[in-house]
Amino acid sequence: MGTSVNVDKTVADAKADDYCGLVLPGGVINPDALRADENAVKFVKDFFETNKPVAAICHGPQTLIDADAVKGKKMTSFKAISKDLENAGAHWVDEEVVTDSNLTTSRTPADLPAFNQRIIEEFSK
Amino acid sequence: MGTSVNVDKTVADAKADDYCGLVLPGGVINPDALRADENAVKFVKDFFETNKPVAAICHGPQTLIDADAVKGKKMTSFKAISKDLENAGAHWVDEEVVTDSNLTTSRTPADLPAFNQRIIEEFSK
Repeated sequence: MGTSVNVDKTVADAKADDYCGLVLPGGVINPDALRADENAVKFVKDFFETNKPVAAICHGPQTLIDADAVKGKKMTSFKAISKDLENAGAHWVDEEVVTDSNLTTSRTPADLPAFNQRIIEEFSK
Repeated sequence: MGTSVNVDKTVADAKADDYCGLVLPGGVINPDALRADENAVKFVKDFFETNKPVAAICHGPQTLIDADAVKGKKMTSFKAISKDLENAGAHWVDEEVVTDSNLTTSRTPADLPAFNQRIIEEFSK
């Protein structure tokens, strides 16, 4: 199922300066590992410091908590982590796609059409 | 691997009054589902309201966040969710087993011997 892609660089060697934006996918395992990796958290933080577009869906926003990137942000996510985002200072809403400043978020795979469309718009600005 | 047990009651039908204590296991999928189930969250809350012993390991403490049960508590967990517990008001520490009031917590399967021993002590009081 899906498509395989080759990893061309580890997050420890990647620099936000070399990218125009960042998409954090969901899944339960992946964000749980990313948020505990200080290189990944630093990489994510750098996109917010330079105000480049960031998009996250499902459990993807968990890593944004560790990157101190959600305080004061209107956003959504998979419902199960809504309390964690609120405790981190986010204004959590139950909408299919939400953009606040440079951050775009969605809830579940069912939101992907709206999420993808919004990413195209935000990354084209 | 492990042992199969039959489910004798769903959490919607279970009452904290009928149990002397609660153990919340870890895993990444299980707590993510439990914390989003309002019957499960209510069930967990009831153990804290009656001050019965509760133990949680790895990602198990995620459900305690939704049960508003960690504020002011000294506790531990799988490292990846430490920031969520701190944002919920917990005092997170990196120790193999921690007991504060009625709550006992551990970090990973490697802590199980200490966790299990402490549970026996706390549930025997």
